[in-house]
Amino acid sequence: MKKKLLYGQVGGSLGAFIGGVHRVGASFDGYARLAAGCFSRDPEANRETGEFYELAPDRIYPDFRTMAEAEGRREDGIDFAVITTPNNAHYEAARAFLENGIHVLCEKPLCFEVKEAEELKRIACEKGLLFCVNYSYSGNVLAKEARSLIRSGVIGEIINVNAEYLQEYLVDDVGAGDEAMVKLSSWRKDPAVAGISNCVGDIGSHIEHTVAYMTGLKLKRVAALTDTFGQPLDLNANILVEFENGAHGVYSCSQVCVGHMNGLTVRIFGTLGAIEWVQENPNVLYVTLKGQPTQIYNRGMGYISPEAAAFSRLPSGHPEGLFVAFANIYKAFVSAVLKTENGEPLGPEDLDFPDLDAGIAGVRFIHACVESGKNDAKWVNV
Amino acid sequence: MKKKLLYGQVGGSLGAFIGGVHRVGASFDGYARLAAGCFSRDPEANRETGEFYELAPDRIYPDFRTMAEAEGRREDGIDFAVITTPNNAHYEAARAFLENGIHVLCEKPLCFEVKEAEELKRIACEKGLLFCVNYSYSGNVLAKEARSLIRSGVIGEIINVNAEYLQEYLVDDVGAGDEAMVKLSSWRKDPAVAGISNCVGDIGSHIEHTVAYMTGLKLKRVAALTDTFGQPLDLNANILVEFENGAHGVYSCSQVCVGHMNGLTVRIFGTLGAIEWVQENPNVLYVTLKGQPTQIYNRGMGYISPEAAAFSRLPSGHPEGLFVAFANIYKAFVSAVLKTENGEPLGPEDLDFPDLDAGIAGVRFIHACVESGKNDAKWVNV
Amino acid sequence: MKKKLLYGQVGGSLGAFIGGVHRVGASFDGYARLAAGCFSRDPEANRETGEFYELAPDRIYPDFRTMAEAEGRREDGIDFAVITTPNNAHYEAARAFLENGIHVLCEKPLCFEVKEAEELKRIACEKGLLFCVNYSYSGNVLAKEARSLIRSGVIGEIINVNAEYLQEYLVDDVGAGDEAMVKLSSWRKDPAVAGISNCVGDIGSHIEHTVAYMTGLKLKRVAALTDTFGQPLDLNANILVEFENGAHGVYSCSQVCVGHMNGLTVRIFGTLGAIEWVQENPNVLYVTLKGQPTQIYNRGMGYISPEAAAFSRLPSGHPEGLFVAFANIYKAFVSAVLKTENGEPLGPEDLDFPDLDAGIAGVRFIHACVESGKNDAKWVNV
Amino acid sequence: MKKKLLYGQVGGSLGAFIGGVHRVGASFDGYARLAAGCFSRDPEANRETGEFYELAPDRIYPDFRTMAEAEGRREDGIDFAVITTPNNAHYEAARAFLENGIHVLCEKPLCFEVKEAEELKRIACEKGLLFCVNYSYSGNVLAKEARSLIRSGVIGEIINVNAEYLQEYLVDDVGAGDEAMVKLSSWRKDPAVAGISNCVGDIGSHIEHTVAYMTGLKLKRVAALTDTFGQPLDLNANILVEFENGAHGVYSCSQVCVGHMNGLTVRIFGTLGAIEWVQENPNVLYVTLKGQPTQIYNRGMGYISPEAAAFSRLPSGHPEGLFVAFANIYKAFVSAVLKTENGEPLGPEDLDFPDLDAGIAGVRFIHACVESGKNDAKWVNV
Repeated sequence: MKKKLLYGQVGGSLGAFIGGVHRVGASFDGYARLAAGCFSRDPEANRETGEFYELAPDRIYPDFRTMAEAEGRREDGIDFAVITTPNNAHYEAARAFLENGIHVLCEKPLCFEVKEAEELKRIACEKGLLFCVNYSYSGNVLAKEARSLIRSGVIGEIINVNAEYLQEYLVDDVGAGDEAMVKLSSWRKDPAVAGISNCVGDIGSHIEHTVAYMTGLKLKRVAALTDTFGQPLDLNANILVEFENGAHGVYSCSQVCVGHMNGLTVRIFGTLGAIEWVQENPNVLYVTLKGQPTQIYNRGMGYISPEAAAFSRLPSGHPEGLFVAFANIYKAFVSAVLKTENGEPLGPEDLDFPDLDAGIAGVRFIHACVESGKNDAKWVNV
Repeated sequence: MKKKLLYGQVGGSLGAFIGGVHRVGASFDGYARLAAGCFSRDPEANRETGEFYELAPDRIYPDFRTMAEAEGRREDGIDFAVITTPNNAHYEAARAFLENGIHVLCEKPLCFEVKEAEELKRIACEKGLLFCVNYSYSGNVLAKEARSLIRSGVIGEIINVNAEYLQEYLVDDVGAGDEAMVKLSSWRKDPAVAGISNCVGDIGSHIEHTVAYMTGLKLKRVAALTDTFGQPLDLNANILVEFENGAHGVYSCSQVCVGHMNGLTVRIFGTLGAIEWVQENPNVLYVTLKGQPTQIYNRGMGYISPEAAAFSRLPSGHPEGLFVAFANIYKAFVSAVLKTENGEPLGPEDLDFPDLDAGIAGVRFIHACVESGKNDAKWVNV
Repeated sequence: MKKKLLYGQVGGSLGAFIGGVHRVGASFDGYARLAAGCFSRDPEANRETGEFYELAPDRIYPDFRTMAEAEGRREDGIDFAVITTPNNAHYEAARAFLENGIHVLCEKPLCFEVKEAEELKRIACEKGLLFCVNYSYSGNVLAKEARSLIRSGVIGEIINVNAEYLQEYLVDDVGAGDEAMVKLSSWRKDPAVAGISNCVGDIGSHIEHTVAYMTGLKLKRVAALTDTFGQPLDLNANILVEFENGAHGVYSCSQVCVGHMNGLTVRIFGTLGAIEWVQENPNVLYVTLKGQPTQIYNRGMGYISPEAAAFSRLPSGHPEGLFVAFANIYKAFVSAVLKTENGEPLGPEDLDFPDLDAGIAGVRFIHACVESGKNDAKWVNV
Repeated sequence: MKKKLLYGQVGGSLGAFIGGVHRVGASFDGYARLAAGCFSRDPEANRETGEFYELAPDRIYPDFRTMAEAEGRREDGIDFAVITTPNNAHYEAARAFLENGIHVLCEKPLCFEVKEAEELKRIACEKGLLFCVNYSYSGNVLAKEARSLIRSGVIGEIINVNAEYLQEYLVDDVGAGDEAMVKLSSWRKDPAVAGISNCVGDIGSHIEHTVAYMTGLKLKRVAALTDTFGQPLDLNANILVEFENGAHGVYSCSQVCVGHMNGLTVRIFGTLGAIEWVQENPNVLYVTLKGQPTQIYNRGMGYISPEAAAFSRLPSGHPEGLFVAFANIYKAFVSAVLKTENGEPLGPEDLDFPDLDAGIAGVRFIHACVESGKNDAKWVNV
């Protein structure tokens, strides 16, 4: 019986933002240990990072393919791989690990093309491997509580959704012309690395997932009004959405909205009630029943449902933040991998992490929005 | 030289909501006195209301036409008429007073048809009469401060607008079928009285006006996704908008969003900064300059611009609410009527109230949204 | 049967702050009309104000004594007097009207000395006259709802109170020496006019009343740490309080707290729940039951108790502010005076306005705080 | 040259709250590794915890004294000890590690008696050892920014302080008599384990430290009104404070305030401005300059001072919570220990963690409050 897991990381050399958050998130519960990695294409940065984490020198790899093959062969090979590279490497890296029998946790968006996403799903199914796409915000306890409340029927049938993800950090790009690419260099703005979308791909996809996670609704079609402001990729999008149940709504995502740092806000309106959750202050959830006062749910209190409370780590009033959201994604995924490795069956309660279906839905959403955006916001099926 | 004005009211018998707010708003500054009225088609309610306000018996009229003609003939006739009936009477009543040489303040929406609105403008121009359409929220000091800041250029060129007006009070209508019309009777849901739209007409039009007032931007076209939920008129709408300067945005209005009572929130995003104003707490304004902390402007402080501060009645921290917004609409309109009656010229600073152009824009907006809503949210020019 | 009342005003010439708020408040419901006044010791300002309100010339009086006597003699004399002078004139003016058989509504603090306050009560009782002390904040609907909830027992026995009233507007006085009296002239800082206290008298007394109004608790003793910062009177006070039921708490009032404009916040903690009310956003009330989510009560909703809802004038989400709080003080007082004048009996439900007992309690509180403040915050009985 | 440190833990077996937070906090930056421990007096729990963290069996100790001596003798002994036991073991454990030449990070309050605290300081000085007392809230970036702003003089001279730490979790203890000790068993309520105070000791001491950390002010005396509600130790306290610079203020701490989970709020008022920080939403800081709009500082933005920004781990809008506050305490302490171990000199910038002077100040504060509380809130010098 395995009690703990080993993992390897692709990308995320010392100093990289999201790669470091992954390592902290993975370490919270003590069930996963970093044992291998190819952290950078820069050999020096790669080595330094591996040494800092005291990896065996032969497990610091020059590229993900070598790593996937070597680790797949080792008796004590890693149990899962964590992919934290820019978007353009996701697909090939994920595929390599799957093909070598290694479970995968990959940053979002999953990949560029829908058919790639479906191919990953095919391989994972075939090999019986688990795959997590890191839509980290659904790791928050109160995002889970929102889901739990909505599932319970307490807000009734969903009739309208209003969600947004607003940032200001690229506002200087507006009208900046080609210089912007140089001045404010970011791979997210480079189609070769980011893919067909910047804003919708990076943050709009979080709206799509968070709403889907909370509500279980399927998107039917979108009408996306996008703005590039002279840049190669979108910086702003206002998107009408229609769900398969007939409900409508609007998603707004932007990297040029001054005053908003990382403003993911989700509001779900039902026939009997509504919920609102604001990522920047994730420890509260606003719940209103028709005709009643709005209630401020507080993570860590006794009224939180057991399935959400299982992820709460601190008493209420002791704020949990993004690192804990990551830790919760890892908690669910690592626990499921452990069970799988030990031959234990997985129930639905073991799968509370974003999977390949979530990843596929994200890629579809991005494609539909981009196509709509290029066609004057016409409706495009997701 | 007139020092004070007389006015008459159409609609607004004792107990009616908005008519009473008008009377209080008109009375705040002591420059206008109620002198005539036809408050109700119910003669008893009409008489009672007139007597309560100690009107001369011969100035309590059975209908607006009689009133317009009689007051137009009197030496001491009313200086302006206030129209606070349901929507379907606006046009005929406004026209009657204009034709009898009486200035008009009319509830919004101005009327049903664009050509009616233009006809009112034609008559008012011809007769040299002032006309105010009561988009009351632009009477708030900090809505004026938002306009002042935007005009000053401090937030740069506007690139995105996100505004909403959400209410919950009709949520029981969703899927209620014909019974809803009976059970939750409201003229706002009856096309014969409300016109072609309920939600967009009643509250969406406030979004349109408030944004136009603050920004000075002209709407070019809209793509409106509307929901009737089985009722004759719309209860919910998510609307993509495009302005003539090329900026995009989204307007959401709803009467079925649980948790929102009267949630008009306007967020204007520019290349250098942004403002946010929330009607439910109108005494603060959020102003952010690029890269800087959000600032909470407080009505009544020394940094408020003179043109907005001129309408502030209480020291900061002493909340002003909707009655004051109405009082400010009246303050500007009554002052302009006084000047006009006294033969004084009016400058732009005297016209800080919503005029017939605002009223026309509102009717155009409603028509465009309804047409778009009936055509799967296709773009419709405003 | 009287259907409406006449009133006269002392103080409050055109341009004065609080006097104007009174006139608007009195006019909201249409049951009281200004008929007499001595608005200023400056004859010109006095006359101008009277003329603006179209008073009969013989009812514009040179002083309150003449006014009290003349109006007391008139067949159509005023039913009540409104006293809106600086503090030092309250007692004599109130006494003069009472002695001439006229009901009184007086600004707070009621007077300088406890024995004066008791004398006013003696005369009012003897003459069967009503007396309202304008602690305006208890006119707010949700202050009434707080009282209603506490009376209902829903928060249990009160065990702790934390209330504050913070302003910044005198911060420049700190250490400014004698020049401050000149530079920032305000009668509130002049002991001859304001009495023995500035900060506690002006705003601390509002804390005392609001808590007493909501809870019904009697103060037993106070320990007040006061700061004059070199000025003649206090600018800041932190006050420990003990109630007769044994509960403790703290009141903080200040005119030198930057960032706070008019920050009256009251938090009442009981064994089963708690309420919090913030005057600057008076349309919401925070209610928490032990172990449950905080609920945001919204003025105007169906769950508001009938006795509080009776004072709500606008649908929820349409903000009411200070003018409405004043209007509600007048609504209750005017209605009680009308009943009294018509010989109708008054029940407890008719007396929901601050009376002479509230006024006396306020004077006692101020004296106790000042004495404690001069004695190193020793305990002083109220 | 050491690049990383080893540490051992006293207390904090698997499942204990604060001990686990320490381990996560220590692991964030990868510079400290758990190498030894005595986690529980229960041998089974002790062993299990040590095994979970893969400690060498001989470094899982039965008691802290054995551990201190053994680790002190080892060549590869731990560099520092982390003490996360209930309060009554702090002093002896801390002393044991110091005497064996091992740096110490200890939970607060440091110990029971002032002379114990001073003894620890004497030993640490004598041995040249570093000592951190875990007042974790000062690890928050914006608590550091508050300090930085206050030091810069931007808010002027401090004239008033208003701080509170409110919780509801013991409200059922009010009047519960002896049964409460059984029913709601907690060592914090047991004088033998918690010391002379429960509420002031546990959370009041956080107020004292956070204010001292931000302002640099020294407390001169306190007047504490405490409530035990029939329990052995205090559950509620309202405390007047006087600082050596003459400024006054009030501290309120409570475990019986319904609606407050972990509400540490600090407001510092100066002659030129004010700051407010709320632990439950630690990623924003309210800063107001006299006469100006309140500014909402956002952790992670460019305007944050370098000394505070050095501790920020995520871009703004990505919330950091309590784990990060702990990680920051560790970051500063571990970095100072590393330098010390490597013989590098420490500058003031290396000592941004709460030290023994902070610990001593906390014990003095608790004693003064308890003495005052037992003497009817008389002033007691700190």
